[in-house]
Amino acid sequence: MSIPESHPRYESLRVREMLVAGFLSGAVAPEGVMAHGRGEAFDYILGERSGGAARAAARAAAAALLLSARPVISVNGNVAALCGKEVVELSRASGARIEVNLFYDSMDRRRIIIGMMRRLGAQDVLGLERDFEMGGLESARRLVSSEGIAKADTVLVPLEDGDRAQALADAGKRVIAIDLNPLSRTSQVAGITVVDNITRALPLLAAYCREMAGYAPARLAQVADFDNGANLKGCIAQIKGWLEEQVDA
Amino acid sequence: MSIPESHPRYESLRVREMLVAGFLSGAVAPEGVMAHGRGEAFDYILGERSGGAARAAARAAAAALLLSARPVISVNGNVAALCGKEVVELSRASGARIEVNLFYDSMDRRRIIIGMMRRLGAQDVLGLERDFEMGGLESARRLVSSEGIAKADTVLVPLEDGDRAQALADAGKRVIAIDLNPLSRTSQVAGITVVDNITRALPLLAAYCREMAGYAPARLAQVADFDNGANLKGCIAQIKGWLEEQVDA
Repeated sequence: MSIPESHPRYESLRVREMLVAGFLSGAVAPEGVMAHGRGEAFDYILGERSGGAARAAARAAAAALLLSARPVISVNGNVAALCGKEVVELSRASGARIEVNLFYDSMDRRRIIIGMMRRLGAQDVLGLERDFEMGGLESARRLVSSEGIAKADTVLVPLEDGDRAQALADAGKRVIAIDLNPLSRTSQVAGITVVDNITRALPLLAAYCREMAGYAPARLAQVADFDNGANLKGCIAQIKGWLEEQVDA
Repeated sequence: MSIPESHPRYESLRVREMLVAGFLSGAVAPEGVMAHGRGEAFDYILGERSGGAARAAARAAAAALLLSARPVISVNGNVAALCGKEVVELSRASGARIEVNLFYDSMDRRRIIIGMMRRLGAQDVLGLERDFEMGGLESARRLVSSEGIAKADTVLVPLEDGDRAQALADAGKRVIAIDLNPLSRTSQVAGITVVDNITRALPLLAAYCREMAGYAPARLAQVADFDNGANLKGCIAQIKGWLEEQVDA
């Protein structure tokens, strides 16, 4: 199906097709298809835009990545299908390594996703071999690379489950989440939560990293100092404002 | 996977498993899996309960079904997978016929869904043969049974696309929608919209049909006389109230 660019839902339908293509290629799990639907609904009530709260969080997140000694971007099937290229660009702009880490894990899916990321320009993708087991987690997500997530000081987790976000935080890592639901456990547990669609948030993060590349650590630390609870309340206010606009319209 | 009943998300996860089972059996389209995710998110922000507005709409809808000469319940893969049994019960309580009508249509999917409905006790399921073409629709949903939707005066459309809801209304039929998004085109176009999860709404509708079975037509007409726009605003107020509770909590 080709969608005319004039369609009022063009962007949402284009992203939906990319996700379905990822499902057909084996990168996206059936549960990932359902999760994408949840994301569509939350993005819809956010007005499908990166508001002030999301931009503030993205800027703080970019500063935190630049400050980190060993930042890692965790990638799953949905992330690879929707914005693998943007992950590669953020990796370059921030110096973060890329590691594939899956809830619905199999060697096949890991290989498919790593292949996708390599074709999109990633030189170095961790996660095919997992030689370290994280505590506090029962899912396959506990198995990580000793070169990547295991020793990372900051982990960017776009599209995350609450259990792992909690386990990463418990392990003393700085957790940066990208999550469209400001009330999710992941959003609440992360140190910095960017409540935004990953297709918009990742380019924003990369742009902020490039903008702040020359900042001194003290200045970066100032930007990275962030009140996540207050920001999440701002996101909920954005949703309420959008609903009010719809009723008044 | 078996989910312990004590799990805080038990009901949502149980329904999710039914949907995935429907997908594996071929009744549910991949797009239906994504649509279920959207529904989960909307149900979440409604507080996963049938509020006053939903109950009022369900009561009006039940009266409208009882008043109708030729009511039809339109069933797709998601409806059959999630609450085929409840459709059969509502069909009995209301006298409505059941017709399978699919956006992502194939003879295989139609056969699978009709088989499911029959095993759940439906004596008579229309839609395998479609011998009438509705105007104003390009999708496969335009093809209907001359015994069912074609000559129906009222059509209950749980989980609908906006184009068909519009086409049914344009054809002079009373459209009753069950839709978790109070802002969707389907919700706006329908004469009566029950903003609720179908797994809760269908049993509610059946209970109201049984309660009002003895009502005189004049009394039913009074109940069926319904301000859909005002009710939809009430549903949006419910979402806003729920969001406020979360922030205050």
